[in-house]
Amino acid sequence: MTGSPSSARLSTAEIIAVGTELLTPFRSDTNSLFVTARLNELGIVVRRKSIVGDDAVDLGRAVRDALDRADLLVVCGGLGPTDDDLTRETVAAVLGRTLREDPSIVEHLRTRFAARKWTMPENNRRQASVPDEAVVLDNPRGTAPGLWLETGDRVVVLLPGPPRELEPMFTALAHTRLASRAAPERLYRRVLRVTGRGESHVEEMTQRVYDRWRQVDPPVGTTVLASPGLVELHLSTRAASREAALGVLDAATGELAAVLGNHLFSTDGRSLSEVVGELLQRDGFRVAVGESCTGGLVTARLVDIPGSSSYVETGVVAYSNEVKRRVLGVDPELLTTEGAVSEAVAVAMAEGARRVGATDIGIGVTGVAGPGGGSDEKPVGTVCVGVVGPGSEQEARTAQFPGDRAMIRRLATQTALDLLRRVLLRRTRERATVRGG
Amino acid sequence: MTGSPSSARLSTAEIIAVGTELLTPFRSDTNSLFVTARLNELGIVVRRKSIVGDDAVDLGRAVRDALDRADLLVVCGGLGPTDDDLTRETVAAVLGRTLREDPSIVEHLRTRFAARKWTMPENNRRQASVPDEAVVLDNPRGTAPGLWLETGDRVVVLLPGPPRELEPMFTALAHTRLASRAAPERLYRRVLRVTGRGESHVEEMTQRVYDRWRQVDPPVGTTVLASPGLVELHLSTRAASREAALGVLDAATGELAAVLGNHLFSTDGRSLSEVVGELLQRDGFRVAVGESCTGGLVTARLVDIPGSSSYVETGVVAYSNEVKRRVLGVDPELLTTEGAVSEAVAVAMAEGARRVGATDIGIGVTGVAGPGGGSDEKPVGTVCVGVVGPGSEQEARTAQFPGDRAMIRRLATQTALDLLRRVLLRRTRERATVRGG
Repeated sequence: MTGSPSSARLSTAEIIAVGTELLTPFRSDTNSLFVTARLNELGIVVRRKSIVGDDAVDLGRAVRDALDRADLLVVCGGLGPTDDDLTRETVAAVLGRTLREDPSIVEHLRTRFAARKWTMPENNRRQASVPDEAVVLDNPRGTAPGLWLETGDRVVVLLPGPPRELEPMFTALAHTRLASRAAPERLYRRVLRVTGRGESHVEEMTQRVYDRWRQVDPPVGTTVLASPGLVELHLSTRAASREAALGVLDAATGELAAVLGNHLFSTDGRSLSEVVGELLQRDGFRVAVGESCTGGLVTARLVDIPGSSSYVETGVVAYSNEVKRRVLGVDPELLTTEGAVSEAVAVAMAEGARRVGATDIGIGVTGVAGPGGGSDEKPVGTVCVGVVGPGSEQEARTAQFPGDRAMIRRLATQTALDLLRRVLLRRTRERATVRGG
Repeated sequence: MTGSPSSARLSTAEIIAVGTELLTPFRSDTNSLFVTARLNELGIVVRRKSIVGDDAVDLGRAVRDALDRADLLVVCGGLGPTDDDLTRETVAAVLGRTLREDPSIVEHLRTRFAARKWTMPENNRRQASVPDEAVVLDNPRGTAPGLWLETGDRVVVLLPGPPRELEPMFTALAHTRLASRAAPERLYRRVLRVTGRGESHVEEMTQRVYDRWRQVDPPVGTTVLASPGLVELHLSTRAASREAALGVLDAATGELAAVLGNHLFSTDGRSLSEVVGELLQRDGFRVAVGESCTGGLVTARLVDIPGSSSYVETGVVAYSNEVKRRVLGVDPELLTTEGAVSEAVAVAMAEGARRVGATDIGIGVTGVAGPGGGSDEKPVGTVCVGVVGPGSEQEARTAQFPGDRAMIRRLATQTALDLLRRVLLRRTRERATVRGG
């Protein structure tokens, strides 16, 4: 025994993911994203991530090196019952600890197997081996217990690889042992989601504001992350006081919201489909979709949200002009004069979908997703979106998107949902004006 | 100058991904999967992957350590023009090389900017710095050239982080400098894709076969990878002779195909939607989809494939019974007596979609994706799939899927496409019988 446990603060961490399959082209480590999120909340910064195979020499070296650098080492994977699961033995060897079988774990494993009317394979006894002075972390969803080991001021945590086992175990740890060893400062985050404007445009609109919030106390840091059709501003601040942190985050969010206006659609983690769904539910509107180049993706994204059956009535994929005419009732003359990819046809498709579904609102999407089908006048990437309703309102937009077929379809879907959002928001403003006036 | 370049064989590699954003919960390194695939083809094994932030000390240490262990080090990222891009300088320092500005790169950068009618920012000159004895790797898609450096028998390759820049550069390298430094053995792979059977069932069917192929020369290794609705057998073999490798892979694939039968749908990388699309095109059939719980995903997956407009006519998302009746013409009596989630309704939806689209084949999907809507008789996860056509043929299936809403919808989509595939395959067999007889 090396005496009482340390109470030194943990501020830096490294993560090691163990498994030869993680060194193939087919699997990547995702546990570390989850672990990093929880550590960051505790104000612990991840300095390095390493991925090693099921090899005692490589793993031992990685563990030794990491303990030279970081306060906390989280090792994910390699706690299974088979011969290539080497994490327990390797870490014990690096720390110079003896492994002993814990009879209560053996008993627990036997009971677990018996409950499924199986006999425990002898292999699984390995999972009951515990290094001296280790704390056993219960695994409610699997046979591999986790381990918490202290060595001087440093901590090593061993967790099983399957995310559904690791995640609840690490969350429990973050609320208990890790929280008590972290500094009193915690990390608080807010994510602002923007659509309809590109990354550089969003930076241009917001930089002066977020630069200023870097100077306050506690300072608010901002990272801009862009993916197709979506720009996110990640605000974060470290503070010992929750009130102080939320105070600056709320104020910074308010100022950024003011400059972003309607382009900002979420400050609380909601996706665009969720925001649109809530606006539809608020007003009791039902929606129908008529889509061509997006091939079902607009409907699929709306239906992604649990409870969406209360506001999504129907979606019709109308690839050919024949179906646009016959099912959505698009005027053949319009298809000839304006072309299938036109705002007039997008609106007619929206109108047709609304009639088919007998809904308040219709959405229409038509475009050239490629790789074929483009022309000089309407090159690949040309997409027209229309929204009709509620009532006689109608709105359309044409966009020219870059990228391949998948990217164009994704951007078209995002644009259709965003146009619907803006139409619904305008009603909010109008109602507020009426009420206010 | 250290004399002529080494010709020692490269057999082990490490990959370092550089970027502070890769140590947040929001971004993960994916370049290493691409790099690993190309290295494995050359018979080079990846022993470790490391992810470090934009920090010269951390990166320098990672580079030094990796060069102690591996023959080849690939560093991805940190070659941009800004102050936090430190890879070039850090690696040069570790190797003790002086950086010199290469006037031809400066000129190339200026021309690149001029072509867009921009002036080159002075920052970008950093990208023209080249360490002594380095080979410059052309980057056709960006401003950051890559670098190839040799130190004794070891090689360090620096590549820009954006995948669309890195991928063509690394592919070019794999065909030239890397190929000439790799051992004559190459890795050859084949991926067998199976649906309609779970992982353990597939293992049971195939294990005896693939165990035997482990003993041949050259030996064929097999890895089983499972994801929802899909089991993949990855066969691989290392050999100096392409003929020998393809010989054993072909033979092993043939034997595995025999035991897997119709559950095997692809041995050449094609996805299920591609296979279904090719069967439809072969027979000149057009298809229409009527889907409820999958909310557009079946149609979207069919339409994912370029050229699908020649065989996908329409898709109707019919969430409510009202739309099932009105648009798809499902008999109200059927909905009452059998319930909306029933094989009879799935077939009626398929029939309705076929009528709406005036196609040869119709697909119907109805089910309870959850989280709400389940009953004792039809719990969450119950899904019915129907296929009608060509002609009077009809087939239906009921499944009980585990998991959450997203997983159930994914599994339902996979099952619908697979049922269609099996119907189309049966026609192949029947035609073969007629022809044979």
